[in-house]
Amino acid sequence: MAHAGQSCMQLACKLPCYRCFQPLYQAEGDPMLSFVNDYSEGAHPAILDALARTNLVQEPGYGEDAFCASARKKIRAACADPTADVYFLAGGTQTNQVVIDTLLAPYEGVVACESGHVNVHEAGAIEYTGHKVLALPQHEGKLNASELEEYLATFYADENHEHMVFPGLVYISHPTEYGTLYSLAELEAIRAACDAYNLKLFLDGARLGYGLVTPGTDVSLADVARLTDVFYIGGTKVGALIGEAVVFPRHGMPAHFATMVKQHGAMLAKGRLLGIQFDVLFTDGLYTRIAKNAIECAEVLRAALVEKGYRFLVENPTNQVLVVLENSRYQELSQKVAMSYWERVDADHTAVRFATSWATRMEDVQALIELL
Amino acid sequence: MAHAGQSCMQLACKLPCYRCFQPLYQAEGDPMLSFVNDYSEGAHPAILDALARTNLVQEPGYGEDAFCASARKKIRAACADPTADVYFLAGGTQTNQVVIDTLLAPYEGVVACESGHVNVHEAGAIEYTGHKVLALPQHEGKLNASELEEYLATFYADENHEHMVFPGLVYISHPTEYGTLYSLAELEAIRAACDAYNLKLFLDGARLGYGLVTPGTDVSLADVARLTDVFYIGGTKVGALIGEAVVFPRHGMPAHFATMVKQHGAMLAKGRLLGIQFDVLFTDGLYTRIAKNAIECAEVLRAALVEKGYRFLVENPTNQVLVVLENSRYQELSQKVAMSYWERVDADHTAVRFATSWATRMEDVQALIELL
Amino acid sequence: MAHAGQSCMQLACKLPCYRCFQPLYQAEGDPMLSFVNDYSEGAHPAILDALARTNLVQEPGYGEDAFCASARKKIRAACADPTADVYFLAGGTQTNQVVIDTLLAPYEGVVACESGHVNVHEAGAIEYTGHKVLALPQHEGKLNASELEEYLATFYADENHEHMVFPGLVYISHPTEYGTLYSLAELEAIRAACDAYNLKLFLDGARLGYGLVTPGTDVSLADVARLTDVFYIGGTKVGALIGEAVVFPRHGMPAHFATMVKQHGAMLAKGRLLGIQFDVLFTDGLYTRIAKNAIECAEVLRAALVEKGYRFLVENPTNQVLVVLENSRYQELSQKVAMSYWERVDADHTAVRFATSWATRMEDVQALIELL
Amino acid sequence: MAHAGQSCMQLACKLPCYRCFQPLYQAEGDPMLSFVNDYSEGAHPAILDALARTNLVQEPGYGEDAFCASARKKIRAACADPTADVYFLAGGTQTNQVVIDTLLAPYEGVVACESGHVNVHEAGAIEYTGHKVLALPQHEGKLNASELEEYLATFYADENHEHMVFPGLVYISHPTEYGTLYSLAELEAIRAACDAYNLKLFLDGARLGYGLVTPGTDVSLADVARLTDVFYIGGTKVGALIGEAVVFPRHGMPAHFATMVKQHGAMLAKGRLLGIQFDVLFTDGLYTRIAKNAIECAEVLRAALVEKGYRFLVENPTNQVLVVLENSRYQELSQKVAMSYWERVDADHTAVRFATSWATRMEDVQALIELL
Repeated sequence: MAHAGQSCMQLACKLPCYRCFQPLYQAEGDPMLSFVNDYSEGAHPAILDALARTNLVQEPGYGEDAFCASARKKIRAACADPTADVYFLAGGTQTNQVVIDTLLAPYEGVVACESGHVNVHEAGAIEYTGHKVLALPQHEGKLNASELEEYLATFYADENHEHMVFPGLVYISHPTEYGTLYSLAELEAIRAACDAYNLKLFLDGARLGYGLVTPGTDVSLADVARLTDVFYIGGTKVGALIGEAVVFPRHGMPAHFATMVKQHGAMLAKGRLLGIQFDVLFTDGLYTRIAKNAIECAEVLRAALVEKGYRFLVENPTNQVLVVLENSRYQELSQKVAMSYWERVDADHTAVRFATSWATRMEDVQALIELL
Repeated sequence: MAHAGQSCMQLACKLPCYRCFQPLYQAEGDPMLSFVNDYSEGAHPAILDALARTNLVQEPGYGEDAFCASARKKIRAACADPTADVYFLAGGTQTNQVVIDTLLAPYEGVVACESGHVNVHEAGAIEYTGHKVLALPQHEGKLNASELEEYLATFYADENHEHMVFPGLVYISHPTEYGTLYSLAELEAIRAACDAYNLKLFLDGARLGYGLVTPGTDVSLADVARLTDVFYIGGTKVGALIGEAVVFPRHGMPAHFATMVKQHGAMLAKGRLLGIQFDVLFTDGLYTRIAKNAIECAEVLRAALVEKGYRFLVENPTNQVLVVLENSRYQELSQKVAMSYWERVDADHTAVRFATSWATRMEDVQALIELL
Repeated sequence: MAHAGQSCMQLACKLPCYRCFQPLYQAEGDPMLSFVNDYSEGAHPAILDALARTNLVQEPGYGEDAFCASARKKIRAACADPTADVYFLAGGTQTNQVVIDTLLAPYEGVVACESGHVNVHEAGAIEYTGHKVLALPQHEGKLNASELEEYLATFYADENHEHMVFPGLVYISHPTEYGTLYSLAELEAIRAACDAYNLKLFLDGARLGYGLVTPGTDVSLADVARLTDVFYIGGTKVGALIGEAVVFPRHGMPAHFATMVKQHGAMLAKGRLLGIQFDVLFTDGLYTRIAKNAIECAEVLRAALVEKGYRFLVENPTNQVLVVLENSRYQELSQKVAMSYWERVDADHTAVRFATSWATRMEDVQALIELL
Repeated sequence: MAHAGQSCMQLACKLPCYRCFQPLYQAEGDPMLSFVNDYSEGAHPAILDALARTNLVQEPGYGEDAFCASARKKIRAACADPTADVYFLAGGTQTNQVVIDTLLAPYEGVVACESGHVNVHEAGAIEYTGHKVLALPQHEGKLNASELEEYLATFYADENHEHMVFPGLVYISHPTEYGTLYSLAELEAIRAACDAYNLKLFLDGARLGYGLVTPGTDVSLADVARLTDVFYIGGTKVGALIGEAVVFPRHGMPAHFATMVKQHGAMLAKGRLLGIQFDVLFTDGLYTRIAKNAIECAEVLRAALVEKGYRFLVENPTNQVLVVLENSRYQELSQKVAMSYWERVDADHTAVRFATSWATRMEDVQALIELL
């Protein structure tokens, strides 16, 4: 455990470490290792520090503040698109809902693979806004460009398609819900299919930071900005308290977007809370620097699992490690480490997820490995 | 200006003061006095301190954390209703939207006075969910119980009312949008009208803290809990970064409320952010203690305005001072002090608002008075 | 009563009369005079005849049939706009809902006077689609162009209007819900206000036929087509079984309108039912010819009421006669004649409506006059 | 061709035949055989006759008329449920939309097999109302009870199901979109699965009449009423001009259903149009009598196709004959007979549909067989 005055964790952020503060809230019983998700902690200390340092600066509300303006500028630079519109929202489901609803025409739906977050784990937030999720098969969480193209060709060939929901937008996540990543070639193929049928492309980047720093990926933030019509840079799961930065490359933000955000109940009075956080995350590359910690921890864990003969539900290179456990092993392990139930595999096996994050300590990974 | 090591502002919160931190962001030009609103700053320092101290405690997401549990318990106690359900949401419009939509049947609308926030300044967030706002006249921002009763009697007497929107819920704000307060007798009369026609009562408490500590009010938090079916305790405008605590007295939360919150895009992954803040605000009465600062500042300002012969648009006892200015005076003053445009009064006069808050410094009030 | 082989009623329609058919359904007790509304009967006999004569012609569904095509052509001619798009829907509320929802942007609402049908008697059908009805005062059922302009000027002058519902479309009815008519000058003034602020104009013509043939009106069908962006020619209340012809002058129908109609559940498989009826109504001016009967009957009734000293709730020249009755007189009269309760005037008086229609028999009007 | 004075078609309806009326509208070129669908003609002559005979009877609007009352009574008797609530709507998509939206809680979706009409051919009308269609696999158009039960078990076993759309209602069609029929045992198994998880069951009976008279079926109208929570008896495709009779067995109609119908824009002012038609269809068993014609015609056609060696896309016993044609054969045949494009089978083959109906003439079936 780091101590006051030391730099925080393995990151050279040169800020005082908050870890050694005496918690106000003492967990009951012995502390349990937790790999439940990547949003179990608060925020990166640099964010808390900035909140404190700016606290009594008076600024306008609703995202009109100087912090948001500064953060937008830095994000545009990071995306290599000086013409990008940037808007800050609070959470992932909210972002998916607002973006999809405001980009679709009323008669259009959003194409997603069946495992897409919008299709399964958002309580129907898309349908709530009146739009159908047009589900295509998933391949380790990914949408296949050929299948997309075939679906679109079939749709327009159908003489009755005026009685059907028009595909208006393609939704993909990167990393996907299974932690996998698209290659640049795959993204370009999806973009080409969208172009061929005049669809927009939306990339859900709730965990984008982790994807960008995964060894072997050939997809950069600039690539994402170049190939999509809209995407978001996830903050909640990559070190912020809350917040997602929605980027509309090439001045692509819909007219009166702010009014529609307000109409969805998604506008924060204190927009500064989002602006300050993204300003910090996009200063000196903090966003990607802290993301690396998650990948490094996951790599160590994954190597150990391979060595011990565990089977993965899906192999992926990012911060979500999906492992198949015997039910008895799962029960036993649950006494000592918190993880996520993922799905039932068969009568005797359960898939679980170990998630690492910007805040994961390598010593906890080692402790987990010993337990396995 | 307070200095490091001093206690913060006039409140005996015994926490280090953040005001003297060197701001990261320097406003351009000379600093301007600002009375634009009550959410121009960040949060009360005690909140920032708690966020820092709890930062690396690992907790479950979605409001299932220990901080939310602790805050709920304290709020129940403050409301004198051990059976109250409490749910934390991010902002006011979101709260109004989610609460109204989930409490109304599909064929019902919400009754509000015409100046109600839901009727004018939420970009149609209520209608977006499919419900009509049934507007009644406003009297200094307040709904009149007799007019409400007459409207309800007329509705049910109309033989065609099956072709009309049924009134299902009454919306009031306390303090109102004009800063006025209901008396206990007025609230009881509205409650009685609701009971007579089987309507629910919802109180928007975006600025509830300020209302509760206003000298002369006879409405307590326990009264609000006793007389309403749902209300919220505003955090955003009373010292929190973001957050509103929705209270459903007497176990009144609708079934599957969390799922519907998710469906509205209103669920935060890091619910702890809301729990920690309300836990702090409801520890040792911080919420009402910091609210008093706003009222004291407003009283001083109001007395000076009276003395100088200014005319109020509406007289009210809370933290929003609504003054009628000659247009030339308004232009002149705008060079030196930030205030809110309220409405056009006539060709030569404009109504403006000076808002005080938990963070207002009395020295700034004095500076404003000198300018007036 | 006319007899088989005679021409029908006072109209030279040269079709066999159906009135003398022995009804399958015998009303209980003595037949009561009925002036309840203008949709108490089935359809003009010429329509029934055409349905019979075309019954076994096989045609495509969904409005792609030859009858709809023929009717569209005749309506375009009647509107003096060869570029008008015409679409047939089943009923008035449905038409208002579909038209308003498909013409508005998501952040826009519809401006209507407070007595507008969309604002009071459609069970919230507009709000159900997510749009607010922005209510302005009514003057004998009419919207005032100056008040409209002032509202629009105030809206855009308000610095916070991005947090408000944008006015996107103006809704007026002609005749209005009170049976009054706009003059051409009034319509032109409303059009000018719409143009000044870039709003669309929608005219609800549920009773348009009656308005067009009222002596003294200076508004023609071509004027309506010239001055509005969309309007509908009411069939249900002017001799059709069901059906409203929506006209979008100058090729103004939104893209993919048919898909959106389907999405609203408003598309009929047997679109021919609507096409045949409007084809008949717009052959040889049947639509306006049959409307005249209602106006003539109303004029006779109105003259008698004046003579007998009755007071009108609102004076109007069309087919809805709105009279104030003493409550005791109302009770007494209700035993012998069916009319519509309109509204409570005071403790002793009630306003009622006598509606005449294409099917009203002058002998029944005379019988009513004797009762009065 | 039948002649005036003869009884109509092969049915002993004893009404004058309308077929020999000189059509007002002459199709261009030689008349083409049409098997495009089962709603290509108007209505059964007995319906037109009743419309004519009742035309000038004055009745209240909105379904409050004597015809609707009479029809409701007859339908209750036919369903062997004297407690059933019956409501008449205009069309199939509208009925699906209104029924599903009013029966579901806001957080619920409707379970349907992937080929269900609500899932593919209603332009997103269900999602438009805010509800997700939860699609399960289809087996010749049918939902499998075991798969349904497994889906429900899995849903409730998932620890995250509060973040997912709750299944609230099961939608099935009978006959299905592929013309297949459920057996009584299959319906009972689906009912049991619904009961086990507290779901409602809705049966789309757009073509119910055809299903009820198919030789070999063991499902009666009383069975449907006994096993479902709501279903509808299709009129549009079985001899009516328009209209579907929604049946809520055991007083199951939701409170304020009429207001919600109005809110959906689905209430007809002249409800009598629906009442008269269903009163006729449910007098002396006309509904099932006329349905038999379709089945008899389809059987003859099917036998001929088998004999000639054609392959069916799906084998079914009702009025939709789904045949796989070589593309060249399809092109050639299209010159002489109208049919429905169904789907692309492979590069060389297309599936088409020949639909028979209450109005199909056996001589036309014979002509089609000769062409094949």
